[in-house]
Amino acid sequence: MAVGVAIVGATGLVGRTLLRLLHERRFPVRELRLFASERSAGTVLEWCGERLRVERFAPERLRGLELSLWSAGAELSRQYAWEVARRDCLVVDNSSAWRAHPEVPLVVPEVNPEALQQHRGVIANPNCVVIPLTMLLKPILQRWGIRRVVVATYQSISGAGQRGIEQLQAELRGEEPPVRVAPWGIAFTTAFHRLDAEGWSEEERKVVAETRRILGQPQLPITATCVRLPTLGAHAEAVWVETEQQPELEMLRRHLGQQPGMVVLDEPAAQRYPHPAQARGSDSVYIGRLRRDDSVPAGIIGWIVADNIRKGAATNAVQIAELLLFGGH
Amino acid sequence: MAVGVAIVGATGLVGRTLLRLLHERRFPVRELRLFASERSAGTVLEWCGERLRVERFAPERLRGLELSLWSAGAELSRQYAWEVARRDCLVVDNSSAWRAHPEVPLVVPEVNPEALQQHRGVIANPNCVVIPLTMLLKPILQRWGIRRVVVATYQSISGAGQRGIEQLQAELRGEEPPVRVAPWGIAFTTAFHRLDAEGWSEEERKVVAETRRILGQPQLPITATCVRLPTLGAHAEAVWVETEQQPELEMLRRHLGQQPGMVVLDEPAAQRYPHPAQARGSDSVYIGRLRRDDSVPAGIIGWIVADNIRKGAATNAVQIAELLLFGGH
Repeated sequence: MAVGVAIVGATGLVGRTLLRLLHERRFPVRELRLFASERSAGTVLEWCGERLRVERFAPERLRGLELSLWSAGAELSRQYAWEVARRDCLVVDNSSAWRAHPEVPLVVPEVNPEALQQHRGVIANPNCVVIPLTMLLKPILQRWGIRRVVVATYQSISGAGQRGIEQLQAELRGEEPPVRVAPWGIAFTTAFHRLDAEGWSEEERKVVAETRRILGQPQLPITATCVRLPTLGAHAEAVWVETEQQPELEMLRRHLGQQPGMVVLDEPAAQRYPHPAQARGSDSVYIGRLRRDDSVPAGIIGWIVADNIRKGAATNAVQIAELLLFGGH
Repeated sequence: MAVGVAIVGATGLVGRTLLRLLHERRFPVRELRLFASERSAGTVLEWCGERLRVERFAPERLRGLELSLWSAGAELSRQYAWEVARRDCLVVDNSSAWRAHPEVPLVVPEVNPEALQQHRGVIANPNCVVIPLTMLLKPILQRWGIRRVVVATYQSISGAGQRGIEQLQAELRGEEPPVRVAPWGIAFTTAFHRLDAEGWSEEERKVVAETRRILGQPQLPITATCVRLPTLGAHAEAVWVETEQQPELEMLRRHLGQQPGMVVLDEPAAQRYPHPAQARGSDSVYIGRLRRDDSVPAGIIGWIVADNIRKGAATNAVQIAELLLFGGH
């Protein structure tokens, strides 16, 4: 039952975390091959005591492997994902390339595992804001109904990858960063993802479209403002959910605490709540600050935090692979 | 027409900014006296080339002065504001002590200057989130009507005063901070203001209550989540305004740009938007990211940024004093 696995984009933040997760989760690996762009090929990464040399990606080089985990950008995925899938190598793609495609399931294992039954070899891993958000919304949707969702994000600059972290570190040292992913700086200030001419970031459009798709609610009224911060370790989200029925708060806390992968951390009198430094390195989605929203007939307010590189990306991808290959792990 | 002025709480972040503003705005000062707690008394501050020694506060020491600007915490204001006001020294109080009192006007000069006509000697300066928020909401309320407001704040840790900045700086140096205003840290993470047993922070309750009062809309549906960040220079707010009529975006931009004290900085295609480092040191409220909210029948989304120590506190207080004494300046 051991599997030949490729990591495509192995030298990036998510790629390196995928490597670590295969070990941590005792994923049954027969053979592990690492791929990256020409620029990063030749890099040596350690895995379980072995030293693995990163190869330049080419689709034919994945021959004989059953699974590939991709985190190398949308362009590469758009170009090669189906070519690799046609050769019986499953593609779990962390990029946004195929997330809207009707023949590509977009999956959060705790939320819509049934979507995997329809796959044709390529499976899309959702956006890092969307994964924790749908994990909060699904149990609310099923039990109390949802009328509208408002989301304000508090995202780590690590969402822009290693370059984002390097920009923050350089600015904190008072140096010019090698690359600017936040055009006006990120140390001590906020930034937005690249905006289009209509005033929206692609990130905000993803939150709307992917959340609707995963929840199976194509008309769900949902609106988002996505903000990048000089934080590390996790993304946070302030969420307002207008519901059909008013959830009783203690019941809501109990219900959310029973969901797989979710941890309720909500003891206001003790000042206990989730925050990025606390959630760093965890695979759980943390929820706190649960309050009744008195500005609507029925609604609740919450605050979710999850490691954007792990559950927001790499962990979710490995969970998808586990479901596909072993029906859970 | 020159005035005898006291600054109560002169050594704090807001106090020092008040000192600077009296000079910058050429406030007609006849005599300037500085007061602080016993701990800070004796500190020497420079003002217009003069060296001023900070005195220990006692209400009788303000005798003969016509104006006092207070930023020394709610407890001192609760205890002494009226005693000072009764001796014909106007009190403009930056603390939250009197903001809900029916005989104390709560004033943003650009929004509800008429409230000053009813004063009895004590005037309250609103919360730093509320001042820019009401400046955005008032023109929308008057022209398009408001049904509900959702606010997510992105607040500088400087809102906790010099101690907040020192905690951030110490953590960035890898040192234990002298005082923890953010119990779980603030460098690279987020924090909340102190939460009560119901799960709300006083800051969030202030945003609701003070916004309603200043806008004269005691029933306005409004909800807030207030978050502290490792940012400096300004607070930011993501705001969703459900309106009665749908504002046309270009008209909204033009209308907001005509409001005193407000600057529209909203060129998404050029990635131009307000952010804390950009607004630092300015007395303006910046608005950007204006978008139509498609999740409601009529509504807009915006992003406001304002220097929390200046327009969010000190500048607004000096503007109130100018209106009181000179009918504007």
